[in-house]
Amino acid sequence: MPIVHIHMYEGRTVEQKRELVKRVTEAIVETVDTKPEAVHIVIHDMARHDYGDGGKLGCDA
Amino acid sequence: MPIVHIHMYEGRTVEQKRELVKRVTEAIVETVDTKPEAVHIVIHDMARHDYGDGGKLGCDA
Amino acid sequence: MPIVHIHMYEGRTVEQKRELVKRVTEAIVETVDTKPEAVHIVIHDMARHDYGDGGKLGCDA
Amino acid sequence: MPIVHIHMYEGRTVEQKRELVKRVTEAIVETVDTKPEAVHIVIHDMARHDYGDGGKLGCDA
Amino acid sequence: MPIVHIHMYEGRTVEQKRELVKRVTEAIVETVDTKPEAVHIVIHDMARHDYGDGGKLGCDA
Amino acid sequence: MPIVHIHMYEGRTVEQKRELVKRVTEAIVETVDTKPEAVHIVIHDMARHDYGDGGKLGCDA
Repeated sequence: MPIVHIHMYEGRTVEQKRELVKRVTEAIVETVDTKPEAVHIVIHDMARHDYGDGGKLGCDA
Repeated sequence: MPIVHIHMYEGRTVEQKRELVKRVTEAIVETVDTKPEAVHIVIHDMARHDYGDGGKLGCDA
Repeated sequence: MPIVHIHMYEGRTVEQKRELVKRVTEAIVETVDTKPEAVHIVIHDMARHDYGDGGKLGCDA
Repeated sequence: MPIVHIHMYEGRTVEQKRELVKRVTEAIVETVDTKPEAVHIVIHDMARHDYGDGGKLGCDA
Repeated sequence: MPIVHIHMYEGRTVEQKRELVKRVTEAIVETVDTKPEAVHIVIHDMARHDYGDGGKLGCDA
Repeated sequence: MPIVHIHMYEGRTVEQKRELVKRVTEAIVETVDTKPEAVHIVIHDMARHDYGDGGKLGCDA
């Protein structure tokens, strides 16, 4: 704890996810007074046809 | 905001998801007084062996 | 199944939530070919200081 | 209701998931006084590069 | 990891939640080959007017 | 999109949440190539009796 879920479009590389997890963990540790090993992050990749914004699919935007 | 997550069995077509996002967005806008562009929907496809109901997997039901 | 989670600002009345659940369920049933009794919806109320958009809290927007 | 989401590393067999759903449902029914048919469980498989712990990806640990 | 979210009606006692967390953790450890300290469980209480089933709120059922 | 959910113990101030949302948004924008206004963050406060780790409630740890 904290438990974090990040939902984003698929296509990011493992290197981008490595940096994402490192940087989001730092941001949490520095602002809400917790330890890095307490931060758990789950990344959920989404296809563009699995996201809707303003009533439209991402693949149609 | 509102943020919506919909978990359902895989197999729906992109056309069905397009209609789903359109209709769910309308339903939210008309009932809780928000704007379409504020409604964000994430669709999560599930395999039938990744859902359990009454202690049984969906693929065994 | 489908399982739906809706996160929105607190302050909606029970009557609005009743209508929301009725209308979202209909939208799902009519677009992805399922039965009303298979649709489960969880509503999560949020305070305006528990939502961030563009790096800013909702209570500051 | 209860609605349960379980996020875990991919690689478990369908037989393991079958047993997981059976056992978690029993654990819930016996501790919080509900019926098996009210327990809905969604299993989310994760790749090791989609999980972060202590600022590091699971695939680097 | 595993990360578990349980959404259920409010009203359970801390003693029931203590037993729930103990028993669900055991069920996971024994079925998917992981260690107890890797299992993280978040319990989400819901009011009966924040759950919908078959198009109806839980408080109306 | 990205959609982010952060579950953490209750007790953080609005000022801490303001800084959390600002810093996590920056971390995401700088690592996965998106715009700040596309980042939506929901903060979920938890009581210590609503979190389990290693089979034990947070309030007993």
